[in-house]
Amino acid sequence: MHLPTEQELIDLRREFHEFPEPGWREFWTTVRIVEELERLGVDQIHIGADALDPDERLGVPDEQELSDWLERAASRTDRTDVLEQVAGGHTGVVAVVDRGDGPTVGLRVDIDALPITEASDESHKPAAAGFRSQNEGFMHACGHDSHITFGLGTLQTVLKSDFSGTFKLFFQPSEELLGGGKAMAAGPHLDDVDYLIGTHVGLDYPTGTVTAGLDEVLAFSRFDVSFTGESAHAGLAPNEGRNAVQALVDATSNIYGIPRHRDGATRVNVGELRSDNASNVIASKATATVEVRGESDELMEYMRDSVRRHIDSAAEAHDCEAETALIGEAIREDSDEELVHLVDRIAGDVDGVSSVRRRDSLGASEDVTYLMRAVKENGGKATYVGIGGGNPSGHHTPTFDIDEGCLLIGVSVLSETALHLLSRTS
Amino acid sequence: MHLPTEQELIDLRREFHEFPEPGWREFWTTVRIVEELERLGVDQIHIGADALDPDERLGVPDEQELSDWLERAASRTDRTDVLEQVAGGHTGVVAVVDRGDGPTVGLRVDIDALPITEASDESHKPAAAGFRSQNEGFMHACGHDSHITFGLGTLQTVLKSDFSGTFKLFFQPSEELLGGGKAMAAGPHLDDVDYLIGTHVGLDYPTGTVTAGLDEVLAFSRFDVSFTGESAHAGLAPNEGRNAVQALVDATSNIYGIPRHRDGATRVNVGELRSDNASNVIASKATATVEVRGESDELMEYMRDSVRRHIDSAAEAHDCEAETALIGEAIREDSDEELVHLVDRIAGDVDGVSSVRRRDSLGASEDVTYLMRAVKENGGKATYVGIGGGNPSGHHTPTFDIDEGCLLIGVSVLSETALHLLSRTS
Amino acid sequence: MHLPTEQELIDLRREFHEFPEPGWREFWTTVRIVEELERLGVDQIHIGADALDPDERLGVPDEQELSDWLERAASRTDRTDVLEQVAGGHTGVVAVVDRGDGPTVGLRVDIDALPITEASDESHKPAAAGFRSQNEGFMHACGHDSHITFGLGTLQTVLKSDFSGTFKLFFQPSEELLGGGKAMAAGPHLDDVDYLIGTHVGLDYPTGTVTAGLDEVLAFSRFDVSFTGESAHAGLAPNEGRNAVQALVDATSNIYGIPRHRDGATRVNVGELRSDNASNVIASKATATVEVRGESDELMEYMRDSVRRHIDSAAEAHDCEAETALIGEAIREDSDEELVHLVDRIAGDVDGVSSVRRRDSLGASEDVTYLMRAVKENGGKATYVGIGGGNPSGHHTPTFDIDEGCLLIGVSVLSETALHLLSRTS
Amino acid sequence: MHLPTEQELIDLRREFHEFPEPGWREFWTTVRIVEELERLGVDQIHIGADALDPDERLGVPDEQELSDWLERAASRTDRTDVLEQVAGGHTGVVAVVDRGDGPTVGLRVDIDALPITEASDESHKPAAAGFRSQNEGFMHACGHDSHITFGLGTLQTVLKSDFSGTFKLFFQPSEELLGGGKAMAAGPHLDDVDYLIGTHVGLDYPTGTVTAGLDEVLAFSRFDVSFTGESAHAGLAPNEGRNAVQALVDATSNIYGIPRHRDGATRVNVGELRSDNASNVIASKATATVEVRGESDELMEYMRDSVRRHIDSAAEAHDCEAETALIGEAIREDSDEELVHLVDRIAGDVDGVSSVRRRDSLGASEDVTYLMRAVKENGGKATYVGIGGGNPSGHHTPTFDIDEGCLLIGVSVLSETALHLLSRTS
Repeated sequence: MHLPTEQELIDLRREFHEFPEPGWREFWTTVRIVEELERLGVDQIHIGADALDPDERLGVPDEQELSDWLERAASRTDRTDVLEQVAGGHTGVVAVVDRGDGPTVGLRVDIDALPITEASDESHKPAAAGFRSQNEGFMHACGHDSHITFGLGTLQTVLKSDFSGTFKLFFQPSEELLGGGKAMAAGPHLDDVDYLIGTHVGLDYPTGTVTAGLDEVLAFSRFDVSFTGESAHAGLAPNEGRNAVQALVDATSNIYGIPRHRDGATRVNVGELRSDNASNVIASKATATVEVRGESDELMEYMRDSVRRHIDSAAEAHDCEAETALIGEAIREDSDEELVHLVDRIAGDVDGVSSVRRRDSLGASEDVTYLMRAVKENGGKATYVGIGGGNPSGHHTPTFDIDEGCLLIGVSVLSETALHLLSRTS
Repeated sequence: MHLPTEQELIDLRREFHEFPEPGWREFWTTVRIVEELERLGVDQIHIGADALDPDERLGVPDEQELSDWLERAASRTDRTDVLEQVAGGHTGVVAVVDRGDGPTVGLRVDIDALPITEASDESHKPAAAGFRSQNEGFMHACGHDSHITFGLGTLQTVLKSDFSGTFKLFFQPSEELLGGGKAMAAGPHLDDVDYLIGTHVGLDYPTGTVTAGLDEVLAFSRFDVSFTGESAHAGLAPNEGRNAVQALVDATSNIYGIPRHRDGATRVNVGELRSDNASNVIASKATATVEVRGESDELMEYMRDSVRRHIDSAAEAHDCEAETALIGEAIREDSDEELVHLVDRIAGDVDGVSSVRRRDSLGASEDVTYLMRAVKENGGKATYVGIGGGNPSGHHTPTFDIDEGCLLIGVSVLSETALHLLSRTS
Repeated sequence: MHLPTEQELIDLRREFHEFPEPGWREFWTTVRIVEELERLGVDQIHIGADALDPDERLGVPDEQELSDWLERAASRTDRTDVLEQVAGGHTGVVAVVDRGDGPTVGLRVDIDALPITEASDESHKPAAAGFRSQNEGFMHACGHDSHITFGLGTLQTVLKSDFSGTFKLFFQPSEELLGGGKAMAAGPHLDDVDYLIGTHVGLDYPTGTVTAGLDEVLAFSRFDVSFTGESAHAGLAPNEGRNAVQALVDATSNIYGIPRHRDGATRVNVGELRSDNASNVIASKATATVEVRGESDELMEYMRDSVRRHIDSAAEAHDCEAETALIGEAIREDSDEELVHLVDRIAGDVDGVSSVRRRDSLGASEDVTYLMRAVKENGGKATYVGIGGGNPSGHHTPTFDIDEGCLLIGVSVLSETALHLLSRTS
Repeated sequence: MHLPTEQELIDLRREFHEFPEPGWREFWTTVRIVEELERLGVDQIHIGADALDPDERLGVPDEQELSDWLERAASRTDRTDVLEQVAGGHTGVVAVVDRGDGPTVGLRVDIDALPITEASDESHKPAAAGFRSQNEGFMHACGHDSHITFGLGTLQTVLKSDFSGTFKLFFQPSEELLGGGKAMAAGPHLDDVDYLIGTHVGLDYPTGTVTAGLDEVLAFSRFDVSFTGESAHAGLAPNEGRNAVQALVDATSNIYGIPRHRDGATRVNVGELRSDNASNVIASKATATVEVRGESDELMEYMRDSVRRHIDSAAEAHDCEAETALIGEAIREDSDEELVHLVDRIAGDVDGVSSVRRRDSLGASEDVTYLMRAVKENGGKATYVGIGGGNPSGHHTPTFDIDEGCLLIGVSVLSETALHLLSRTS
């Protein structure tokens, strides 16, 4: 195999780390990915609306927010041709390497960052080594900078190898919002994929540990809730108001009381409560974000439907109107045994791998599951591979980092697996 | 005037005191009233369904409850003819004395008792003097025994007097439940009443004090609420239940939070919470009684409608069904100035009256207001007269009693007023 | 083995079925068990306070309730000597057969019935065959009549067998209330038990199926809750009350909202809501029963402590006092592999057994776990054996019944197991 | 009397209208008042900490907010000497005109503005005439620009008049927050005031209408509430959080359910709900603003104490900490009959006054009541005078405006009254 050098990978990762962009706003990120793909000489590059189904995007921010980030990206690149394509939240790329007859193998990596302010003290390596986030308040605190690097590194290796078949690389936007997976699964490039590999770095495993099949992600749904009532002077005429705060409080109280389910674990939480009424005014507006999870799609749907019922009836109780807007969703899909077995076997022989776990449970939610299900429904197979990365502190914290020694290991495992699958029928 | 003797009144009052019966179950009471009316030689005696509109009765108990009390009454009287008429909760009497052309004057007294266990210690006069309640657990703790006596005493006086016109005496059942006033107002005997006098004994005023016009009763509505869900094993399958307890708790919480109203005082309370589910079963049934009040009919209706909305939406929130059944209602109606003025003037000259207050506010709820409004709507006048009675402890307490010296005073004031009005046009 | 005849077992079961008694009121039941033990010639018979630790009894009813049932029992037996011992809720028996050196083997059966009215139509066999419950409103709807029979049948077999060691038979009262297990475990007879066998009939398995080890009972806690406030007239002075209904509603709402736990399944439910205030009175008292469960003792305790915190703070919020009284509790304890293996092997050879399941989960709560843990803590082993019984409808329903063909099977499995253990070291 | 010209008053009012500043941030406003006082040649000018008791200020904003507004003020004036005094929220002025022996008469006007964005369309006169707010987002939407003008105009008139005694003019900051009245009442200048006049423009009365005594302000209390819990991942470990959102929701639900009070009207409302947790994190912080009112101080205190109890117990229920910070308070104090009578008589003779109302109720809350009570407690008299102003739309709306014809009327009424009182003993 013609692997990239470790330094190449480290350079790539650090560049992406330095310019983190949140979901649907990965404008500069998309430009840089496209530039790399062009440099590597990829056959087909599908960007934004050509990469996924734009109508299925969830949680796309408002115009102002999008144009602020587009402007920021424009200040760092002169590729206005790409920026035009991605404007309006049309981020993400699918790269296709078509080498004729043979199986189609897909690799999915996610590319967005988090609204977390990166640590700035010297004990945090990115700060010490000079590649700390330049987008203050945002950070690659979940390792998607490494995921992009895994993708580009694997692509480079695959391109230099002989095989018959097709290799597709999915750079998925907006995973943190659980907003991009569904759209990419609904897009035009999954239909013919026979084998799909998803991947995640870190997850509290040390460098050298590989997990062949991550499972038990929780199905997930998140929506914005808004109650609209009518304001009135709280001193003079409280009865003339229709109190959106009371509606929100009523709904929230009921939402936390949704019964446990016999079939397994469920979750529910309410965040971002907000009413802007001064206390001398009955609230005409109150908003929140609600999310639910379940061990299975059905359990998540039980919670989601119950939440919606409570929102509607709390609105009715307080003579308000309620609106909900789905802003993120993920299903549950486990890894296929066939691919788990394969990765297990291959990874064991990769340089630097000291331990292979067949399966492990993730506990959190991931929308790679949409892509996995789409492939399975077409008769394909999918697995979700964990690449240990020695992260010193937890994901989604200001001091998250990875041991860059995992980058080449990840590229090796993913390349070997992809090429093995591509060569199967050749 | 040919007033009865004080002893006659005391005897009557004590007899009724000894056999208290709650609303719609005043079977023996009705029989005894009828017997007295017959003895006095009244022209027309209208009983039960002939005295009021039976379809407008509120809060009628269930069959079992009614037949238990009917049986109890049957053990004390052989007037099966009257018992047959009153069976099924058709209590109450209207007595009519028709003396030809002239005004029609009505007197309304209420006849029901309360579910309170009467005090049995010697310091409580009815116990010491041997006329404590024999219907254990029930008691004339609001003075309706005196009201019946006022009515019969006044009737006796009127009968022995010369006048031209018609005198009607309304023995209204079920005032404590606020269940009989509406039905009696809807009955056939109010239409031609020109002047209506209601009356109440006690109210914390000493014997000798008369209030010419009691006002500011609160409009009132009471209803039974029942939530029906579906039971399930609380350990095995909590999600399979539809939890009536959660619905009741949700509704109750919201009900207490109904906004204050700019136009005046409102009240709300929840009583008789009940769910019979063992704790290992999700409740399929939960019930309560809710009541609301308001300084005006509109304020009461604002509260009532809000309560109903909360009940319906709490049912919806928890996937239950809700039923409400109106069991008591009262409107607000104040005394007419013309009659207040008249009673004020007449009472001042009555033997034993030491103080006359023109108007006072009642604070509580009373369904004499339905009769008052019916009369007013037909162009008549009405007032609600308070007869001080030296009650040593508050109404609705186990030691409530009245100073029997007030009985003759009450009869005198009411008779004089009625005869004055009857003689006006003669 | 000298097994009893099937008819003997059927007769016993039907007799106990006909006179069901609820927890801590198994007065007649205890008398009859003692009579049988005497008939069989058991060495030691320990009754009530001698059988368990009376201070650890949970959920003992009030004096009136106890004496009503004692009276009822007295009308069916002349064994006043036993009735004197059991009076006050001191039911339950431990029988001991001491044959010298050797292991001590215990069998635990429970003896109480449920407050369910038994079906009376002919399709319900106990009704058709004339042994329907004569204690109207109560029923052996969980099969404890069979359990008593298993116990007596096994004892009879053991008594007729040769072995060295000690056999103890625990007739535990008040399992349905989860009120007797803790007391029996704390009693003087568990300390030297080397092997304990618990057993349950039915559980939706057909006759011929045996489960060697029932597991995953949920740890459980149930308590009565009482809020005491102060009454006031809801119309005149609502602010003068301290509203116990509001406190109960507040607590209940919060209780259902206790967060899910990362470590596994939890449960919570509220039953028997009650406030006796008429709606025109602010409630001075409101009560309920709350129960919690958890997959582990820790999870149950997390729920229990949270519930208590909510009860205390709801009382504080509404200026009320709260009291809680523990009325039932169970821990989680799984079957020991050694005994599961043994029962599995023995049962497979028993006449009538067509299928043996090694382990199964119960899903419900059981206080046999206290006895199991006490034995284990002393270095012993325990298992909880299921005897399929072809029950046509679910446990705790009015038409619950068992196929009496399971009685002899149960006695055989339990006797063989007990004797095998007793003979081990002989 | 030497009244100012109408144009002088209009110019003043428009200048203050153009630069509205909210409570404790009236930096430029205070400078301009001082400049006017200097121009008029006032004896004593007391600023900020010399005008009131700084420790009694309520609702003072944070440092950042204060310095932002100070900077803004500094860009409009070079009076750094005054800015230095007011820095840190020490706004407000007391002007004293001492003419020797005689009574002390005080006039109190308030000077702060509201966080409302002023209408910009031509139908709004300030926009059309070019004196719309230049502090975008803030507006004199309650007429305090007119109040300052009333004060300065009255002072000018008084200064030019002969009298013996002392005239004090109180420019009170932060009335809208109900944060300045208490501090000014606690300051050193109220003690010797014999007669205090407060005043308010508009109140939906047309120009030419004067109200001699405004009454029935509601006592009021407002506080910030903050719940602090502990965050945790809502999917992985919901039980590890201490949920501040649940605490806030619990408290809010209970707060709206505080019982009505027998003694009169009460009010409660919750505003500015806020929790910043993303929905996948259990909230560690949740805040709101709560306000209560009552027809009397006692009723307000009943509500305030109840709210605090609910906040504390909701914190306890959800294992959080709660903090409350009083940010505004007002008591109830009615106008004295003696002064009402005087203003009634004087106003009737003032040019332009077409109607004088003796008394009217305000319905809202005002902290002039602190000053009124301080004066009364020292044996003085106080009244609160309404000057009709033909406002086309309600107070606190973006299109609020006054008919400037009322300015001279207000100055006339207030000057005549003040001078009449000052001359009494001369």
